[in-house]
Amino acid sequence: MASPAAVRIVEVGPRDGLQNEPGTVPLLAKVALIEALAEAGLKDIEAGSFVSPKWVPQMADTIEVLAALKRRPGVRYSVLTPNLKGLEQALAAGIEEVAVFAAASEAFSQKNINCTIAESLERFVPVLDIARANGVAVRGYVSCVLGCPYQGEVPVAKVVEVSQALVAMGCYEVSLGDTIGVGTPGKAKAMAKAVADQIGLQRTALHFHDTYGQALANVLACLDLGIASLDSAVAGLGGCPYAKGASGNLATEDLVYMLDGLGVATGVDLDRLAAAGRAITGALGRPSASKAARALAAKAG
Amino acid sequence: MASPAAVRIVEVGPRDGLQNEPGTVPLLAKVALIEALAEAGLKDIEAGSFVSPKWVPQMADTIEVLAALKRRPGVRYSVLTPNLKGLEQALAAGIEEVAVFAAASEAFSQKNINCTIAESLERFVPVLDIARANGVAVRGYVSCVLGCPYQGEVPVAKVVEVSQALVAMGCYEVSLGDTIGVGTPGKAKAMAKAVADQIGLQRTALHFHDTYGQALANVLACLDLGIASLDSAVAGLGGCPYAKGASGNLATEDLVYMLDGLGVATGVDLDRLAAAGRAITGALGRPSASKAARALAAKAG
Repeated sequence: MASPAAVRIVEVGPRDGLQNEPGTVPLLAKVALIEALAEAGLKDIEAGSFVSPKWVPQMADTIEVLAALKRRPGVRYSVLTPNLKGLEQALAAGIEEVAVFAAASEAFSQKNINCTIAESLERFVPVLDIARANGVAVRGYVSCVLGCPYQGEVPVAKVVEVSQALVAMGCYEVSLGDTIGVGTPGKAKAMAKAVADQIGLQRTALHFHDTYGQALANVLACLDLGIASLDSAVAGLGGCPYAKGASGNLATEDLVYMLDGLGVATGVDLDRLAAAGRAITGALGRPSASKAARALAAKAG
Repeated sequence: MASPAAVRIVEVGPRDGLQNEPGTVPLLAKVALIEALAEAGLKDIEAGSFVSPKWVPQMADTIEVLAALKRRPGVRYSVLTPNLKGLEQALAAGIEEVAVFAAASEAFSQKNINCTIAESLERFVPVLDIARANGVAVRGYVSCVLGCPYQGEVPVAKVVEVSQALVAMGCYEVSLGDTIGVGTPGKAKAMAKAVADQIGLQRTALHFHDTYGQALANVLACLDLGIASLDSAVAGLGGCPYAKGASGNLATEDLVYMLDGLGVATGVDLDRLAAAGRAITGALGRPSASKAARALAAKAG
């Protein structure tokens, strides 16, 4: 195995995780989670989303979350900003990084953001221009890179094309999302390689969901390529384990446990990370979706 | 990736899984499970254990289970037989395969079977001799191959040594068990390679528990070596997900899902397998520990 010596973990639990919660998550629980993640050593934390609270009510208090966060040297908080209005809010909050998101599936784009892929990309151009003019880094997300709930198969060529478009408009990195967690290691690696071959390894990140239990194996397969930017969510937030259509993120604890074992540096303290996970799952009133976190808790007695 | 074209899956749910159940599992539920697994295409199914019911009460009805099973061409049921008494019961039941088990950890051997590793191996010699004289194949298990709950680190050299001893006395295959699920892919691959280099690839099998969420990634790493015999348990049986010290087996559904995606033939029908898992977890009154099974159930509505 030719794993990289170190990887950057982008912690998406506070956004991609909590946005799927059925109940309201208190502001203080969100802030405590993000602070605890930063204290565990995570340097890149997705803290919220400036989208319409009509569509994503769980992210309605992103302004308050950002205002409450202690700023720490070396820790970057990012928010999703699908449009100029969102970007303006992010700029007002003094955020150093924002993210835009497109789909690799035409059917998903239509159903999820009500426009074609091309239209969504066009909308991002002014967002990128103004962000960059203000010294704000922009990350791009591509969803449905290994399958779509509506159209099924998604051509790798389309994933490559959308990734290239995001880089062309100024995204410093593109995170490839297996939104419905259907990918397996061979296909994940081939897809990631096709993208990295075009936009560069250093611009390629992975965002795998664990719906079918494949996320960690998929990451392992792609580490071989030298990809060194990985998204995950503490406690596997992002899907209730026993809800219909459950689709949690790869658990950061399980990822860090593997990377520690592989000797790949993450800068994250696993015990502190697991404590952050216990606190938020306790606040949510349900067990962690991270097996490593549950095992560590059992071991600690 | 240089995965093998096909693998043999040894289904251990009815034994290694159910033996850890806190409540009594009805005989009919066990028989129905094993029949359903065979109908799903599994050819190697561990059906029970002839150990003292004082120590493993869940396996006390193994004779009745075996008597009730329909015998199918090409399907092999095996049982654990730690001693001659157990072997006699297996022979009386007309079983074609039995298994013996040793530890790679001296501390675990003492705590778990109350003797040294060397003593446990000595005890197996007459079991192997009589089994082979009766045309019964014998599989060997080695536990704690990647760590021990009592002594911590386990030297790879010890795993190799115990594996060689089992082969020398006549085991056709040795299954390397990460009993407490602490392994990560690099270490798992190095350990499996060290064993396979000595006893041969075709005699090397893997038995990974998913305690820290690493089992599938560990399997993936080892597939590269060409290992083509893998143990798993339907529904991830073998540990209650929320119990202290939970330590379930790798879920067969998650494994088959990955292998299907990799194009590695298993002969197993994933939908039928998932149905077998739903039936037994329904009987046990708890959710499946297989993410693929839960996702398939959600998709089916």
